[in-house]
Amino acid sequence: MTGVKQTFPVRVYYEDTDHGGVVYHANYLKFLERGRSEFLRTLGFELDVIDESFGVLFALTEAQIQFIKPARFNNMLIVESSLIALSGARMTFHQTIEHQETKRLLIKATVHLASIGRDGKVKRIPSLVASKLRSHLISEEYV
Amino acid sequence: MTGVKQTFPVRVYYEDTDHGGVVYHANYLKFLERGRSEFLRTLGFELDVIDESFGVLFALTEAQIQFIKPARFNNMLIVESSLIALSGARMTFHQTIEHQETKRLLIKATVHLASIGRDGKVKRIPSLVASKLRSHLISEEYV
Amino acid sequence: MTGVKQTFPVRVYYEDTDHGGVVYHANYLKFLERGRSEFLRTLGFELDVIDESFGVLFALTEAQIQFIKPARFNNMLIVESSLIALSGARMTFHQTIEHQETKRLLIKATVHLASIGRDGKVKRIPSLVASKLRSHLISEEYV
Amino acid sequence: MTGVKQTFPVRVYYEDTDHGGVVYHANYLKFLERGRSEFLRTLGFELDVIDESFGVLFALTEAQIQFIKPARFNNMLIVESSLIALSGARMTFHQTIEHQETKRLLIKATVHLASIGRDGKVKRIPSLVASKLRSHLISEEYV
Repeated sequence: MTGVKQTFPVRVYYEDTDHGGVVYHANYLKFLERGRSEFLRTLGFELDVIDESFGVLFALTEAQIQFIKPARFNNMLIVESSLIALSGARMTFHQTIEHQETKRLLIKATVHLASIGRDGKVKRIPSLVASKLRSHLISEEYV
Repeated sequence: MTGVKQTFPVRVYYEDTDHGGVVYHANYLKFLERGRSEFLRTLGFELDVIDESFGVLFALTEAQIQFIKPARFNNMLIVESSLIALSGARMTFHQTIEHQETKRLLIKATVHLASIGRDGKVKRIPSLVASKLRSHLISEEYV
Repeated sequence: MTGVKQTFPVRVYYEDTDHGGVVYHANYLKFLERGRSEFLRTLGFELDVIDESFGVLFALTEAQIQFIKPARFNNMLIVESSLIALSGARMTFHQTIEHQETKRLLIKATVHLASIGRDGKVKRIPSLVASKLRSHLISEEYV
Repeated sequence: MTGVKQTFPVRVYYEDTDHGGVVYHANYLKFLERGRSEFLRTLGFELDVIDESFGVLFALTEAQIQFIKPARFNNMLIVESSLIALSGARMTFHQTIEHQETKRLLIKATVHLASIGRDGKVKRIPSLVASKLRSHLISEEYV
């Protein structure tokens, strides 16, 4: 079980900031999702294709987020995503966001997702996707 | 032609502001859409019901927006919406956003929409909706 | 310790939804923040006035969110906010979002905030604000 | 007057879509702004540095947008930005968004901006920036 920490760069634009001069807190969740989407793309999966081929979406069921330091306008950030748990219809990611230049850790998150059908009901992760994901599981202790 | 100028209050929250200390420009389009949704609700139409009953959505085809003065965090705004043109599958709104307390005009917009089906193709506005809309048309000169 | 569960209605507009047909997950955090802003307004505090008068902002330090059921376009939601912990520069809210009509519970969240100065450093909650907040603390067991 | 059409790729994520299955209309304005920010970066200017060095921000004063075809989830888009007018404190961009793969034109926009100080008042574009911008002006007929 080798696993992989996938990294993805995100630029902070005006749209992401708030009147406090920093990134608006809810927008970090968008950055985290971009990271998970790119994690899956790295494995060869496109979320629109998974939806069309298998009628499957991945929906958040739970998230724990620590807002450690704020990101600012025009910063380049690195979103790092590791898959730390996987079962029939569920997966858990450990994710961080750090400032690219200073390497300062800004955000730490654990995000739980369920595989659901278009009717919103839980539905097994397609086996093709699951077996590929399994080979990229990383033990939580290495995160 | 009696017509109606429909008004709807919008509170500016943190989510709406940007690092410049004012409302992020794209978010005024969200406020304008809330105003149009409430305009239709005033006429007795719920957009989700129109979608389910007639398979019809209203999509923007064109918008002209003047950003006259900025709104700030915690401001109460008034979105005013007037229907100024209507044809088989198209409608045009004149909309403004003003600061509730000072009455200062912040935004002026003309927004063109098309009635489309779920396939994205232009589709006549359902006649029930169209006839009600027609009775609320307001001549552009009174806007 | 009487406490108060403050409730605030939120309408789901097009801007809040995503291609899955439901509210985009990060947007629930916006609804939760509107709830906390209105909680403070109920107590007589305006966040822009607190910022101007005391140079104090409230920033998220941590959030745990459970996404139990999705909200849909045009739904009316109720955000309920209870202050469950308070110290010199920190406060914790328990919040829920439910569907107004069906009373179905959609979201459960615990949100931790710190009082910070414009320099981003932790700064005591102004005593005027803190004493009012204290009288609205609610024991977690009653949430 | 050689000019330059600057292009910048944008990926459509879940956050950008709405319940109609396409990109939410206001979000195209975010993509356009990312394009303008990258246009300036290509010329050697970082907006945060311009803000800090000169106390200058660029604020939208007017926008005309045509929504020609919708973008969908997971699409790769190309934002193309051309500077077509420039005066003491004002500039105008012509921008388009097209679908990267099919080259289909989705959005056409004309965006007017003013250079403003932190007090919100119009302020000349810093001459260093203005002279560089001038060399990248493109005649509207070539857009």
